[in-house]
Amino acid sequence: MPALPSGVVYLVGAGPGDPGLITRRGADLLARADVVVYDGLASPVLLRLAPPGCERVYAGKKRADGGEPMAQDAIERVLIDRARAGKRVVRLKGGDPFVFGRGAEEAGALSAAGVRFEVVPGVSAATAVAAYAGIPLTARGVASTVAFATGHGADDASPAVDWPAVARADTIVLFMALATAGDCCARLVAAGRDAATPAAAIHWGTTASQRVVVSTLGALPDAIAAAGLRPPSLLVIGPVVALRASLGWFEGRPLAGARVLVTRAADQAERFAHAIAELGGDPLIAPLLRVVPTGDLERAEPPSAYAWVVFTSANAVDATFAELDRRGLDARALAGVRLACVGGATDAALARRGLRAD
Amino acid sequence: MPALPSGVVYLVGAGPGDPGLITRRGADLLARADVVVYDGLASPVLLRLAPPGCERVYAGKKRADGGEPMAQDAIERVLIDRARAGKRVVRLKGGDPFVFGRGAEEAGALSAAGVRFEVVPGVSAATAVAAYAGIPLTARGVASTVAFATGHGADDASPAVDWPAVARADTIVLFMALATAGDCCARLVAAGRDAATPAAAIHWGTTASQRVVVSTLGALPDAIAAAGLRPPSLLVIGPVVALRASLGWFEGRPLAGARVLVTRAADQAERFAHAIAELGGDPLIAPLLRVVPTGDLERAEPPSAYAWVVFTSANAVDATFAELDRRGLDARALAGVRLACVGGATDAALARRGLRAD
Repeated sequence: MPALPSGVVYLVGAGPGDPGLITRRGADLLARADVVVYDGLASPVLLRLAPPGCERVYAGKKRADGGEPMAQDAIERVLIDRARAGKRVVRLKGGDPFVFGRGAEEAGALSAAGVRFEVVPGVSAATAVAAYAGIPLTARGVASTVAFATGHGADDASPAVDWPAVARADTIVLFMALATAGDCCARLVAAGRDAATPAAAIHWGTTASQRVVVSTLGALPDAIAAAGLRPPSLLVIGPVVALRASLGWFEGRPLAGARVLVTRAADQAERFAHAIAELGGDPLIAPLLRVVPTGDLERAEPPSAYAWVVFTSANAVDATFAELDRRGLDARALAGVRLACVGGATDAALARRGLRAD
Repeated sequence: MPALPSGVVYLVGAGPGDPGLITRRGADLLARADVVVYDGLASPVLLRLAPPGCERVYAGKKRADGGEPMAQDAIERVLIDRARAGKRVVRLKGGDPFVFGRGAEEAGALSAAGVRFEVVPGVSAATAVAAYAGIPLTARGVASTVAFATGHGADDASPAVDWPAVARADTIVLFMALATAGDCCARLVAAGRDAATPAAAIHWGTTASQRVVVSTLGALPDAIAAAGLRPPSLLVIGPVVALRASLGWFEGRPLAGARVLVTRAADQAERFAHAIAELGGDPLIAPLLRVVPTGDLERAEPPSAYAWVVFTSANAVDATFAELDRRGLDARALAGVRLACVGGATDAALARRGLRAD
């Protein structure tokens, strides 16, 4: 395959939280990145897609050490500097980079600096968080217009939100509106929206931590307070919220809500974690096992000294070939030796080496 | 890995056109589907992700044979019947299934029939098509509210569009509005939106066939007619459209706009097509080569009869191992034979068989 161009910044949408919702293109670029600049909404699982030598720069708002978050111009400076040094930079942003993510600002800074960039859209939190809560943004006969807005106040540099216009959309999605939910809902009611309109607040949607509070536009702020919801949360208002009663599916999955600790060795944990996520669980990879050679193999006789070799695991196959390789040998050295194995995975590991058990 | 549950329908968003923009989860489910029911907006490249034995059902509007398209209730019937027969069904829909895709209707039918389903959100055409045209839907200081609507007329069962409310959103995205662009733009101007507002129509966005027409709200219908744009096209209206001048990036990619015919053998074309897409091209896979065994190997002497075996390609390695396997042998049969190979890919193919060239 041709090499990817260097000296470029990819503004990649990480999707809404579920690491399975990043795009294939985003995942491919992450796997070949020299530098990843990520924020707090990008799943840690996604960072593991980046290669081991990749520089990782945290640009999120909350810092574990309590320090000041990176200023926007400092983030842009990192992107520009690394690209100018010939690096392939992935700027990983929660959701979609061009929907309330300051992605337009970053693209503008790159453009002004003459740095090549591409945009890799992501699944927006607006659609996905709602979908995982069983709420479609549009539905025939129920909702055919949708409005997105944020709950940011007058301190924001954005134009003031036209609440009366937003209030008239069939479906309203409010980003970053948990802290100002009281004000937002009051403005929508003041603009004429029926206080009895179904409304929901969804915390950490699409992840195993997802919590959904369903209420009405008028009562939503109290319901949020009663449930103790915290950011990140998305508000969805409109008759589509009532469809959740029949379209909810996420909470019914076999491992829904379960956080599962995966203690397998790091190089074997990924597939297992994937299967857990597939069934609705939240895998937490904490390798408690590490497979290391004992050194016995190094002291073993030449392969031809054995009548039988019994492989008890795929690890054993790997270790045997590592030792053959160390001695400058390959599968041919096992000529005259009969082979046996325990289990299908071990058999498959043998087959990958051009061998089959006798 | 645990097997996936059977008897289930996955409503999967295929994304906006670029096959790299399907989610990892969507691609995984496709690869393990028993049945795929797809529409005309899902890329043919994505269908190749489904396994060979998978049943493929076309449910799009345009039929190559000119016949009647499948009715909505017939589509729902297929989904329900196949799931009840224990199949894993992927319903692949362009964009996001819950944004103007009748996904809510299909989910409702599944729910009413008691069929288990999951929703796998996709990248919406609204965000991605705009992003590939260099247009962010929101931008600090420029746009902080977004409205989605369709150009469907009064014949639609959806509630009538509240055009005055839509007109006041900072950014307006209109789906399926090409045929009614004149009416839509006139309604927005009549509702008070400045006719000088920047506006764009984007045809087959995110693909190599992407065409962007930039104009103003008042002049857009004429510009569309002059350019001869046809569906599928998305309309984006608002000051963010002007950002395209500095944020456009898609047309500058090395193979942008190029349709590349890939004639390699089918099992080798996929990676090459991927590399073409990565550079901005549109790969069309039409295998003109097929690698077949000549039968010479079947008549070959036992491996031990040769002093040297020279592999000239990875195909040769594969063919040799197929023949060894046919004879009930494995890599050990090459003991005493010296091995040589031509090229790095051949070397890698040998290594995958547990061998290395001498």
